[in-house]
Amino acid sequence: MKEFAVSLDPGSRKPLYEQIYEAVRDAILSGYISCGEKLPSTRFEAEFLSCSRSTVELAYEQLLSEGYIESQPCRGYYVSDVRELYHLTDFMRESVLPVPEKTHIRQDYRVDFSPNGIDLSEFPFAAMGKIMRNLMLDEGEHLMKGGDPFGEENLRQAICDYLYQSRNVRCLTEQIVVGAGNEYLQILLSQVLGRERRVAMESPAYLRAFRTFRNIGYPVEEVPMDRDGMRVDILTETEADLAYVMPSHQFPMGTVMPMKRRLELLNWAVQKEGRYIIEDDYDSEFRYRGKPIPALQGMDRSGRVIYLGTFSRSIAPATRVSYLVLPAHLVKIFREICGFYACTVSGIMQQTIYHFMKEGYFEKNLNRMRGIYKTKHDYILAELRRCSWVKKIRGENSGLHLLAEVDTDLSEDALIEACKERGIRLYGLSEYFLSGKSVFRDPVFLFGYGGLNREQIAGGLEEIGRIVTGTG
Amino acid sequence: MKEFAVSLDPGSRKPLYEQIYEAVRDAILSGYISCGEKLPSTRFEAEFLSCSRSTVELAYEQLLSEGYIESQPCRGYYVSDVRELYHLTDFMRESVLPVPEKTHIRQDYRVDFSPNGIDLSEFPFAAMGKIMRNLMLDEGEHLMKGGDPFGEENLRQAICDYLYQSRNVRCLTEQIVVGAGNEYLQILLSQVLGRERRVAMESPAYLRAFRTFRNIGYPVEEVPMDRDGMRVDILTETEADLAYVMPSHQFPMGTVMPMKRRLELLNWAVQKEGRYIIEDDYDSEFRYRGKPIPALQGMDRSGRVIYLGTFSRSIAPATRVSYLVLPAHLVKIFREICGFYACTVSGIMQQTIYHFMKEGYFEKNLNRMRGIYKTKHDYILAELRRCSWVKKIRGENSGLHLLAEVDTDLSEDALIEACKERGIRLYGLSEYFLSGKSVFRDPVFLFGYGGLNREQIAGGLEEIGRIVTGTG
Repeated sequence: MKEFAVSLDPGSRKPLYEQIYEAVRDAILSGYISCGEKLPSTRFEAEFLSCSRSTVELAYEQLLSEGYIESQPCRGYYVSDVRELYHLTDFMRESVLPVPEKTHIRQDYRVDFSPNGIDLSEFPFAAMGKIMRNLMLDEGEHLMKGGDPFGEENLRQAICDYLYQSRNVRCLTEQIVVGAGNEYLQILLSQVLGRERRVAMESPAYLRAFRTFRNIGYPVEEVPMDRDGMRVDILTETEADLAYVMPSHQFPMGTVMPMKRRLELLNWAVQKEGRYIIEDDYDSEFRYRGKPIPALQGMDRSGRVIYLGTFSRSIAPATRVSYLVLPAHLVKIFREICGFYACTVSGIMQQTIYHFMKEGYFEKNLNRMRGIYKTKHDYILAELRRCSWVKKIRGENSGLHLLAEVDTDLSEDALIEACKERGIRLYGLSEYFLSGKSVFRDPVFLFGYGGLNREQIAGGLEEIGRIVTGTG
Repeated sequence: MKEFAVSLDPGSRKPLYEQIYEAVRDAILSGYISCGEKLPSTRFEAEFLSCSRSTVELAYEQLLSEGYIESQPCRGYYVSDVRELYHLTDFMRESVLPVPEKTHIRQDYRVDFSPNGIDLSEFPFAAMGKIMRNLMLDEGEHLMKGGDPFGEENLRQAICDYLYQSRNVRCLTEQIVVGAGNEYLQILLSQVLGRERRVAMESPAYLRAFRTFRNIGYPVEEVPMDRDGMRVDILTETEADLAYVMPSHQFPMGTVMPMKRRLELLNWAVQKEGRYIIEDDYDSEFRYRGKPIPALQGMDRSGRVIYLGTFSRSIAPATRVSYLVLPAHLVKIFREICGFYACTVSGIMQQTIYHFMKEGYFEKNLNRMRGIYKTKHDYILAELRRCSWVKKIRGENSGLHLLAEVDTDLSEDALIEACKERGIRLYGLSEYFLSGKSVFRDPVFLFGYGGLNREQIAGGLEEIGRIVTGTG
């Protein structure tokens, strides 16, 4: 037993007990005191260091809880067998920790025809900021505690009302589940629907949903589309028991599924026990001619449609709020299997959206955005029609992108590459075919316009024209 | 071909085209015009209704896109075969939509000893609200667009720094993934680690993690604990290749794993290719004696520890922000498999937390909370020690709950039930054993104190005492 000469520094930011703890630990690790040796008693050591006994006790407790020393009742503290620990750590020292690669650096484009481009220049940020601040002041404590795992009641009610009025979706608040994004809700759904599923998707397909299904482990069947959407005759020939469709505006094709095809699809669903249709209604809000076609969910009388909606387009992507409308008979099983998950959307974001809707900002903003996007839509449509190199335009009057079939000798990839060199980002249709090969003879491109202004649209199309016609 | 007598109401909120659309649709549905019949031309109908031709065109387009009519090039519009649609819908009408059950109504308790109870009375709501509002005003547009799928760079850097300083976790920002809650990150992890996994968990177990693994489809092995935590000798005998542990403060037992056991666990991990330790470090911030024990992750030189942390305790549950620290070699594969998922935490919440940390609120609040919880801890510990019916106390000096073994003839369930009748909510340890049976002879209860004041603690314990000693 020997005392420890620790040069204590009472002026340090480090507490005294921690200084003692570190000194003893280092002495053990360096072999200055060895296994089995007895430590000085706390009283003795405290006298030696001229500090209070409780300070030494605290240091010993820390050493005890980290396993450097052991306590033997009525006898005192002894150094643990740390040589064994060394033996364990030896081989670990040898292996080198690899440094992960740096994140890929994004290239800057002058004009990016991304179909995900959006325009937030008119968004009521100040109003939303004020809502958030007031919520924090008035309801902060309530908001920061855990809430309803399926989403707050008032928000679910507001979603219910909105969906009924604008999409003819018929449901009770109990059927709604609020979650952080479509992919998360898709994953939850898979936990309820079980592992042994097979999904049919429209081809070309919405890739985020496809990748999510792949990660979940569901085999995906590509079902070709005609001008009315997924071909139900081909769907029927597959083994799929889930059909993931976007009837109001298919991504990427922009196809709107007419009533008859919808009924055929519903008919497919009721032909066999356990079949479901997942209706992804992601951007039905943006339709520039006529009124949006009511959702499939509202036509379903047999509880076979699972409706998936999002505020990503109707408010903004980074709100990260989506919602699921479950058929009534799935509500109970969903609660049993997924009821223990806390809601993935923060309480403050849920209430912000609720107030945003309740105070009329949501509708006003949506109407304004529809106007802004319609103007851009009409402009790019007119411009594309003037381009001699555009053979056919698809997907008009809805959403935030159009498709154009281009008359060119270049391959899709070659044109994308040539555009990239000139600072223009183009998106080919091929990648949306799971085979990687487009069914169209000529290259087809997605022209997103949501995030672009007139100059960018006109300039971008001109540049492409120069490349395609070989005049640049 | 016959014209349509639509009684148009120009004063209605419903646009004229919609009034025409509805009239034609209803005429088709009611059989007034039948399949194959030709509609009047838009020019003819517009003259008849004294409205503009484009109004009628819009109405026809809507009917067209919903499939009620078909367009024959150069000939005009014809009514579709909707009788077939009727045939399809007939059986759907018959089935009745079941109404989902109402959500279970919560009982109100006078005193709730929930281990999840927290105290937010001193939380800087005003400061957080101000941060949010300023962010919306200054960076709204940037914040509401999509960001980095793994979390914003500055927040990940702040988490890195915090983890290094307070937990000795060593990592680069690239290794961090921000997500909406532990369970979500657990699910993502499973997509990277693959389906064929077997998890070992400490028994008694943290149930939310257990249920998540069950939903993922991983078989779970219960490994008993001794006073040092999970018994690695028993772990070695299982087929598990993942060990989910809470070394800094096990839930529910409150066990702190000493250094030696940690090294044994790391040793287990390197014995076989593909083994990983998931270190859930959920509430290491609240330790009332000595300093927190450094994380297992910081001792790992072979990339076998996946670290899981959360702001649920260090800020508040409803922020819904957790983070994963991946071993460097998993970063690339994680990006490949999960890189397309958008970050589940809203941009505004991420930046709010970043500023909360950067401006010092985080640390200040944590210190204040530690003080508040320490006072409550010391109080309930002293009170429990005074109770004649308490045989043994476990899990002191850390977290937000203690465990007490109760000397009673009542079963765990019976005591919970008796307390419930008097408005006291008690939590038994049995439910944390996956078998449903506690390994302790006497009933053990979790006493959470985070959300209770002195009066509630004293009153609650008194009431339990009356029941146990039969003096009530």
